[in-house]
Amino acid sequence: MFSGAQVSLYAMSDDFVGIILGAIKSLDPWRDRLRLETDSLSTLMVGPPEVLFPAMRDLFCAAARSGVHTTMHATVSRGCPGEPDDPMCTPAAAASRELSLADRMAAGRDAVAAAPFQDQDIAAQISLYPLGVGHHMDEIYGCIEFLKNSGTFARSKNFCTALRGDAGPVFETFGKAFTGFGSDTGHLAMDVTVSANSPSDR
Amino acid sequence: MFSGAQVSLYAMSDDFVGIILGAIKSLDPWRDRLRLETDSLSTLMVGPPEVLFPAMRDLFCAAARSGVHTTMHATVSRGCPGEPDDPMCTPAAAASRELSLADRMAAGRDAVAAAPFQDQDIAAQISLYPLGVGHHMDEIYGCIEFLKNSGTFARSKNFCTALRGDAGPVFETFGKAFTGFGSDTGHLAMDVTVSANSPSDR
Repeated sequence: MFSGAQVSLYAMSDDFVGIILGAIKSLDPWRDRLRLETDSLSTLMVGPPEVLFPAMRDLFCAAARSGVHTTMHATVSRGCPGEPDDPMCTPAAAASRELSLADRMAAGRDAVAAAPFQDQDIAAQISLYPLGVGHHMDEIYGCIEFLKNSGTFARSKNFCTALRGDAGPVFETFGKAFTGFGSDTGHLAMDVTVSANSPSDR
Repeated sequence: MFSGAQVSLYAMSDDFVGIILGAIKSLDPWRDRLRLETDSLSTLMVGPPEVLFPAMRDLFCAAARSGVHTTMHATVSRGCPGEPDDPMCTPAAAASRELSLADRMAAGRDAVAAAPFQDQDIAAQISLYPLGVGHHMDEIYGCIEFLKNSGTFARSKNFCTALRGDAGPVFETFGKAFTGFGSDTGHLAMDVTVSANSPSDR
């Protein structure tokens, strides 16, 4: 398995460089379980899902606490046949496909309900792409049903689903969507956008 | 067919509201061929590919001409089985699947070479997701080969391909990747990030 994300963090401020460089320190506790590579467009994070999503959460919250309108986009992927297997990416516990879809959705909902709050309200949207399977819409509809019952659902949109809530449960929702749907060892991509302190929400 | 994008425009400036509201005027020439809906996370643009990509290009260039570090993310989709057919989205001329992959790549390369320059240098990255097909990697590898020979290729990255050049050819490359690969009437999603005036590039 190979899993990771290309993550871009944006701060709508003249001091965006300072805010972003300050936020990157929040990745320190995760560094021994992640491989990081930065260029001018994004930072590659390679690691297992249970590290990727909390690390992205901490990075985003650190920037959002500046009070400035902050957004983050991530292209997240697992099981791409074009990438090498990497032992670093082996999940601690994969979501079992022996459970029914209903039981997987319930387990996801329980995990989201138990996620520690981060005291940071965020808005988000998520698109899921299960690749290399013929009945991809069944998995997408299953995921949308999970999102609607996750406790973080905001509204349906074209091409994505909008979420809203504290960063803890919302990033836990991302993680459960990423591991709970599509083939458990197959190729799956996910596209997430996160926003805090938007003047449109005031 | 239903095609469109969720587009988010970001300006790293205390005056991000002014820059973004100013740039939105650049969509005026396209409004009669697009349906637009804006919320705090993104603007939905619904329309055919030959309108979507030039409209996104004009929107991004208008913001980038502020000189401020500006980025844009778009989740682009066509043929999603969950969306209604919309006559507004019918492409003027679909890329013919009667052509061989090599001929489709050559036609794409010619179109990129003929794209009018916009006098705006940009960096970009692109990921393509052909959905509901078993041999999705063949289409992805075909698209990557096209990108490498497009004249706008910058480098290969994990989960995406980086492009660089004038906004005219780069957005034309997006359009040809979107229409030239995957099933011609099937479900395909694309994830693009664009950046201008980054201090990392100076």
